[in-house]
Amino acid sequence: MPLMTRCLAELIGTFWLVLGGCGSAVLAAGFPYSAVVEKDPNFFGLGFLGVALAFGLTVLTMAFAIGHISGCHLNPAVSFGLWAGKRFRSSELLPYIIAQVIGAVIAGGLVYLIASGRGGGFVLGGSNPLATNGFGAHSPGGYGLVAALITEVVMTFMFLLVILGATDKRAPQGLAPVAIGLCLTLIHLISIPVTNTSVNPARSTGVALFAGVELISQLWLFWLAPIVGAIAAGYVYLNVFEVASSEPESAE
Amino acid sequence: MPLMTRCLAELIGTFWLVLGGCGSAVLAAGFPYSAVVEKDPNFFGLGFLGVALAFGLTVLTMAFAIGHISGCHLNPAVSFGLWAGKRFRSSELLPYIIAQVIGAVIAGGLVYLIASGRGGGFVLGGSNPLATNGFGAHSPGGYGLVAALITEVVMTFMFLLVILGATDKRAPQGLAPVAIGLCLTLIHLISIPVTNTSVNPARSTGVALFAGVELISQLWLFWLAPIVGAIAAGYVYLNVFEVASSEPESAE
Amino acid sequence: MPLMTRCLAELIGTFWLVLGGCGSAVLAAGFPYSAVVEKDPNFFGLGFLGVALAFGLTVLTMAFAIGHISGCHLNPAVSFGLWAGKRFRSSELLPYIIAQVIGAVIAGGLVYLIASGRGGGFVLGGSNPLATNGFGAHSPGGYGLVAALITEVVMTFMFLLVILGATDKRAPQGLAPVAIGLCLTLIHLISIPVTNTSVNPARSTGVALFAGVELISQLWLFWLAPIVGAIAAGYVYLNVFEVASSEPESAE
Amino acid sequence: MPLMTRCLAELIGTFWLVLGGCGSAVLAAGFPYSAVVEKDPNFFGLGFLGVALAFGLTVLTMAFAIGHISGCHLNPAVSFGLWAGKRFRSSELLPYIIAQVIGAVIAGGLVYLIASGRGGGFVLGGSNPLATNGFGAHSPGGYGLVAALITEVVMTFMFLLVILGATDKRAPQGLAPVAIGLCLTLIHLISIPVTNTSVNPARSTGVALFAGVELISQLWLFWLAPIVGAIAAGYVYLNVFEVASSEPESAE
Repeated sequence: MPLMTRCLAELIGTFWLVLGGCGSAVLAAGFPYSAVVEKDPNFFGLGFLGVALAFGLTVLTMAFAIGHISGCHLNPAVSFGLWAGKRFRSSELLPYIIAQVIGAVIAGGLVYLIASGRGGGFVLGGSNPLATNGFGAHSPGGYGLVAALITEVVMTFMFLLVILGATDKRAPQGLAPVAIGLCLTLIHLISIPVTNTSVNPARSTGVALFAGVELISQLWLFWLAPIVGAIAAGYVYLNVFEVASSEPESAE
Repeated sequence: MPLMTRCLAELIGTFWLVLGGCGSAVLAAGFPYSAVVEKDPNFFGLGFLGVALAFGLTVLTMAFAIGHISGCHLNPAVSFGLWAGKRFRSSELLPYIIAQVIGAVIAGGLVYLIASGRGGGFVLGGSNPLATNGFGAHSPGGYGLVAALITEVVMTFMFLLVILGATDKRAPQGLAPVAIGLCLTLIHLISIPVTNTSVNPARSTGVALFAGVELISQLWLFWLAPIVGAIAAGYVYLNVFEVASSEPESAE
Repeated sequence: MPLMTRCLAELIGTFWLVLGGCGSAVLAAGFPYSAVVEKDPNFFGLGFLGVALAFGLTVLTMAFAIGHISGCHLNPAVSFGLWAGKRFRSSELLPYIIAQVIGAVIAGGLVYLIASGRGGGFVLGGSNPLATNGFGAHSPGGYGLVAALITEVVMTFMFLLVILGATDKRAPQGLAPVAIGLCLTLIHLISIPVTNTSVNPARSTGVALFAGVELISQLWLFWLAPIVGAIAAGYVYLNVFEVASSEPESAE
Repeated sequence: MPLMTRCLAELIGTFWLVLGGCGSAVLAAGFPYSAVVEKDPNFFGLGFLGVALAFGLTVLTMAFAIGHISGCHLNPAVSFGLWAGKRFRSSELLPYIIAQVIGAVIAGGLVYLIASGRGGGFVLGGSNPLATNGFGAHSPGGYGLVAALITEVVMTFMFLLVILGATDKRAPQGLAPVAIGLCLTLIHLISIPVTNTSVNPARSTGVALFAGVELISQLWLFWLAPIVGAIAAGYVYLNVFEVASSEPESAE
């Protein structure tokens, strides 16, 4: 499969991740919006659980749709982690990441566009406008820099362990999309209150660009922490769990 | 399998899609209904998340039940998209679509009938009576025509990409029903506030017919936009991702 | 596998269905209970969605656990429907159904016992004490006899179509437990407000016996309607979708 | 695979179970926290359903990631139950359990650390600080010792039956992680109000150590009850359902 085709698949897939994840958060998580007259007080939005599910399902659906085309990374940290685990070539890191970021930015713009189509208009507001990631004043629950950094590193570390393990030849074949998608859901269930959950620099960038300088100025953390966590996981999986499997078995 | 049998399967499947999706929205999403004296203030209805899950599960369950009979389209836009991707014959488009619409209308009537069995009766009301689709005054969140059009085109485009990718010979076999069903759930998680989510002309028609002239007069968008999005996806998948796969592989 | 062993599996499985489904409804759906001083106003119970998921997961988990032992019916209507579809012998109908009802009654008693261990005690109250099924005054949403009857017949009909289709030799192998379990979730998403959802005479009986004469006097509907719907589905699948498959294929 | 490597996998896996399950409960279940000024009244936390899903997904994801390495027990009761069912060697019970407890304690500390990063600080409070397990005054719903004991024994018994059945050679291959993970979700849907759900001595210990003497003094029940239930299940599965399968088949 030509690199260009695979990059297009990554672009579309990351577009879907941001449109689905951030789109559901912006459009549906807090329905009915305070600006709208309540039409039916019993008909309520998604909350954290629905947004967590949406993020996971973007990856699950895309992994079935384009897994056989590009491997379905949709995330620079995933590309780095697979590279550290010797499952992805360094020469393709940059094209993949560029494609992911482009897809994310297009999706961020589209979410903004659709949200602006609301009668009465749409105003960027709250601590996390357009479902951006942040810490301190831009953490949904008011968590500081250290908690945010630790959370993003650990969550991405575990995300990559699941990705590397579930796509291991020894794991049940064909089900990795389910494991990986639902792992992203799980990560959101834990960490939305802390950073609004990134573990994905492209996703963070795709919406921050439309949300103003203050959010952009926090983007560094959502590039640094996920990539550090991912590379660490690639290193651990490769050197502990893959090496071990080629050593003599214990009796069991 | 005779065409008549396959059309009957499509009729039953689309009946289930509308009964399950719109039925759960009408009967259970906003429980306890304002007209009913609250019996237990802590026992609450489905909200958007539950309805999104219900729509997805209708497709997931039917894809396992009748996928081997009719292919389980349940949706004129899906039939058009598969046709555009050269997976479905033009001669069978019309019979499939007629069967889908008949199943949807029967389900719409049954939802109305069951809802009317409520003590104190059932009144068509709110912006989206009987879980109809709409824009402007008939958008749950008050989104206008342009936002609705963009949303329906993009959502159906991505829905068909997932369908075409997950049923590709190169994708994990047997799991397409899970991918496709949960993709419909995801689409609802994003877009219920915009149009109450269609991506399916039969589903829109099946309930609009019982909901009055104003809703029927918006039906054109829910035929046009999903079919345009679906055909575009069929074209893209066929010409980009299938052609590419027969070209010489890059080194990886 | 001896019949006695298979009946024991059915007993345990139906015990799990009622303990999980009705137990989650009684213990967790409406948390915090009004009788308990609110400890944390933001920590809320399951609502309809959680109960729907619980019912489905009882079947999904048991189908993986005992599917290879007894076929995992857990429901007299399922046994009748499989019999009508020529997948189950009439000579085993009665032993299976007896085992299912015994398991359900033990679970009903256990739910009552655990609920009674609450500080301040537990009082049977509300329209559906112990998660019983009912219509009229015992419908969660106040639905009458006709709506209840139609709903239970149609829901069980569709449930059996999914069971017969998903276990068809032509369907993806190994995933029937997922399809069938999630179908039961879907059925609950639609119909909890109408009858509190039965589609299973054993489940209805297991809790009604502990809930008083009024609930017991409505049990007839939850034996009649599910079994009628199930037998109709067995007949339709056998005579329409299985016969068709042995006829000459159309061109596709 | 060397025992040391497998124990490391168990440590990481149990770390993930406690971080994901207890972390989501502490950080996200009751959002917005009463101590935080409400930023968006419509944006709500996970409730019981989200926490139940989080616990299940920790097991589902890890079973795909490390199932092929250590078997993915993540739970001393599971190790005991597999041992009773003759699927695990007694010589490895202790190392596995030590690894599980270490992983759980590290996760408990990390949850505490992240929670403390909240602006305004974090105070251990409520009936179940740090998502600890308990009964009486430390039961979320105020359930007493007997109800707690019965619930934990029965839930773990059923958990192990599902584990033993879903990993039986006769069950659909490759899907055990889904069955087992979602079984843990189901168990939480039922029993969070009773004991905050343990069925796992390591999980209980991992957070109790940071929550004070009163919670630690109730830990005995969450070692005793799960292990008793698990051993009983191993015994039943081995002697009823495995013996039966090697006897002459009845006619079906």
